Amino acid sequence: MFKYSLERLMSHKNLCKLSQFRCMSHTPTSIKDVTSGKHQAGDQINIKGWVKSVRKLKEHVFLDTNDGSCSQNLQLVVSKAQLNGTAYGSSVNVSGTLGLTPKNQHELKVEQLEELGSCPLTEGYPYYPKKSYPPDYIRNHLHLRPQVSSLAATLRVRHHATKCFHDYLDRKGFFQIHTPIITSNDCEGAGEAFLVRPANPELLKQMAKKDVPLDRAYFDRLAYLTVSGQLHLEAMSHGLGKVYTFGPTFRAENSKSPIHLSEFYMLELEEAFMDNLKDLMNRIESMLKHVTKSLLDVASEDVAAVRKLTTDSTLEDSFRWLDKPYPRITFREAIDLLEQNRSKLKSPVRAEEGINKEQELFLVSHLQCPVFVTDWPKAIKSFYMRQNPTDPELVDALDFLVPHVGELVGGSVRENDYQRLKAKLPDQEALKWYLELRQFGSVPTAGFGLGLERYLCWVLNVHNIRDVIPFPRWAHNCGM
Amino acid sequence: MFKYSLERLMSHKNLCKLSQFRCMSHTPTSIKDVTSGKHQAGDQINIKGWVKSVRKLKEHVFLDTNDGSCSQNLQLVVSKAQLNGTAYGSSVNVSGTLGLTPKNQHELKVEQLEELGSCPLTEGYPYYPKKSYPPDYIRNHLHLRPQVSSLAATLRVRHHATKCFHDYLDRKGFFQIHTPIITSNDCEGAGEAFLVRPANPELLKQMAKKDVPLDRAYFDRLAYLTVSGQLHLEAMSHGLGKVYTFGPTFRAENSKSPIHLSEFYMLELEEAFMDNLKDLMNRIESMLKHVTKSLLDVASEDVAAVRKLTTDSTLEDSFRWLDKPYPRITFREAIDLLEQNRSKLKSPVRAEEGINKEQELFLVSHLQCPVFVTDWPKAIKSFYMRQNPTDPELVDALDFLVPHVGELVGGSVRENDYQRLKAKLPDQEALKWYLELRQFGSVPTAGFGLGLERYLCWVLNVHNIRDVIPFPRWAHNCGM
Repeated sequence: MFKYSLERLMSHKNLCKLSQFRCMSHTPTSIKDVTSGKHQAGDQINIKGWVKSVRKLKEHVFLDTNDGSCSQNLQLVVSKAQLNGTAYGSSVNVSGTLGLTPKNQHELKVEQLEELGSCPLTEGYPYYPKKSYPPDYIRNHLHLRPQVSSLAATLRVRHHATKCFHDYLDRKGFFQIHTPIITSNDCEGAGEAFLVRPANPELLKQMAKKDVPLDRAYFDRLAYLTVSGQLHLEAMSHGLGKVYTFGPTFRAENSKSPIHLSEFYMLELEEAFMDNLKDLMNRIESMLKHVTKSLLDVASEDVAAVRKLTTDSTLEDSFRWLDKPYPRITFREAIDLLEQNRSKLKSPVRAEEGINKEQELFLVSHLQCPVFVTDWPKAIKSFYMRQNPTDPELVDALDFLVPHVGELVGGSVRENDYQRLKAKLPDQEALKWYLELRQFGSVPTAGFGLGLERYLCWVLNVHNIRDVIPFPRWAHNCGM
Repeated sequence: MFKYSLERLMSHKNLCKLSQFRCMSHTPTSIKDVTSGKHQAGDQINIKGWVKSVRKLKEHVFLDTNDGSCSQNLQLVVSKAQLNGTAYGSSVNVSGTLGLTPKNQHELKVEQLEELGSCPLTEGYPYYPKKSYPPDYIRNHLHLRPQVSSLAATLRVRHHATKCFHDYLDRKGFFQIHTPIITSNDCEGAGEAFLVRPANPELLKQMAKKDVPLDRAYFDRLAYLTVSGQLHLEAMSHGLGKVYTFGPTFRAENSKSPIHLSEFYMLELEEAFMDNLKDLMNRIESMLKHVTKSLLDVASEDVAAVRKLTTDSTLEDSFRWLDKPYPRITFREAIDLLEQNRSKLKSPVRAEEGINKEQELFLVSHLQCPVFVTDWPKAIKSFYMRQNPTDPELVDALDFLVPHVGELVGGSVRENDYQRLKAKLPDQEALKWYLELRQFGSVPTAGFGLGLERYLCWVLNVHNIRDVIPFPRWAHNCGM
């Protein structure tokens, strides 16, 4: 048996050997580093990526290669002898000297080419070269979808947008809270929650207790997937002050709508000591403008690559809303505006039912700007919204509407009057804890929820929400 | 009816009025800004927070106040007349002039005090002043727990740690992917997955299809909560290159262990073109050192505040591991080391069963350092791990062990040989997509998973994992 000693392991010599390991890196150069100018003509580099197109000339072959780091491909110049069957879709490991094309773009004169994996189209690969496919088709092959350039660009934008929201909120002193995914409070679910229980029936039997139905044995009660982290976030704001959650949220709906998913991402924010809609609107407006500007700073190439699939308008034209102050109108004003334009709407205007999607889109297109709608009738809004100090029929709630998707953000000042809240609580027992927040060190709070996918649809001009999330789930669809 | 026109709304005057709103902020000064020196003696400021202690002297009363922004309290100096019943736990809105105590610390000489909410201890408030409570007791009141200073500090550290991981990975060119929470692949679940279905039985009836059992009607199949995002992440790495996921993960276990939860957060990373354990170990070691140094840069006060509850050792002493290279030993070497020290262990050493928690903790304590254990027997590791190129009985897998919690990270190079993987796949039909990644543009990939809560337990010297997550869920426990 190998004789092993602590001394040997921890000896200086051995640790030096370990340190040496640390200096040798096999990491290839990223194409983003090349296209962003971190390397220059004459540099010897190693690239690993996938072949996106092949053009054969007399003596040479040009391979456009992408490694996922950015939208741009790097052109490889390869001799016919080197090529040796490498074709569209293959993965390659190449080394060579960086040069410039006549158009002053980087290209790699390949000295060594190794094919890592081939891509036999005829054995069922769904995406052929030089063909464009409709999103519905692309979506049927979720596991290979990141190999489609526009989808890879969308997912990079999703990463950067998420990062920009986190950065902005951290800078503003908010703490991210992981509100629970599994919850025993379904009171906001309105019958649209998913139930959760162990898949293993033996486990439930082991855990069974007298007086607890077997399907509840794991948590001693029914447990649901969260439909909103807001109420939990309010508890956190009572102690931490400024908090947000940014995670998956669930709805069991039988919907085929292109703006609904069963699993989606929501940014929810709660700010202790905030007691009015004006401050809340300022927070939302300022956040959206800062985050979107930061996003365009780091990802404008990818944003442009996705947008050009559906629109000819330039980034500059498309993002003029970043420099405008947004109109703020009351619900009553919005209804009046809709009534004045009844002839342009297909749906009837009914204040008691709120504002539907067509009407939301009409408002933003008519005002030519994203718009806040405030001061909603209490009958059509949630129990936790604060009664308006001057009109008891209204609540201090807002919707924020944007072109293309309609409602992007919903928010409110929360009811923190103990008696008024108690009278409106939908479930006195399950929400006893929520009421207690108004009993011990109560403070005003206000907050909002913003759908990440809707934000991405808006910014990227994407028409179906299923194409801005890596693994879309909706009625009858849960691939992989 | 109010006559409303677009012209009025969009008029220059109206927009200027809106812009004015934007300048008026009601946001109070944060105590963090005061203690970090952004304000000086003589400044007029407004503070909103909770009273943490009350000391009455002859003429004045000192109130220690906290607003959640940091561990430190701000001392308020209040006259007895102003106090008017305000006591421990109340929330207050105070304005006054910043001054300095004889010990050169900031204090606020209060000119206006408004109590926002009282805190009637006798009506069931669980945390009395000047008393310390065991974690089990504190945890029984999840909704009020952030009002306990040590818990608030823990959650701020959790925020900063999460942020530091995101920042590091973004800098290194990784894209965050939201791998799905609801998945139809339970193959890694090993019988420990949760099932998901709509709570509303009417919805299932509406969605029923011939040949699909009613409990599967929503997704047309059984759907589970994710036990790992790794396989989905591998699909994303085939196109995007460097990716990670950092989200909730689930296990339906009947466990009371202080290092297991039913819902926990895992950072999983996958790097295309990485084909060996050395690079993977360098990635993990470098990430943990950088992230922890960044965390101590931004949150050392909170880290120290939590650690002092369980240890006297200084931050400097506790974090010496940041400057050491970590030993890297093989599984065989680890077993030999354990066998040589059999007398110090309660549990028998059985290579065929792997290394248990006691033995993990022995290894790190014996080596006085976190340690990588590599080259594991294939029989005790997962199907997706690559067969070792020189010994077919081993796989290229690693565990990374740290003091206090044992296994913090598990990782491997993935099997990307089509035939070998096909032979080991646990479910040929459900994992057909996973096999296809090795058929079309296949590349080597390597990756790992790291438990956020275990990382926090380690860094904060917290003994129960339920105290580093805001809403812990485990067997028989799903409060709120």
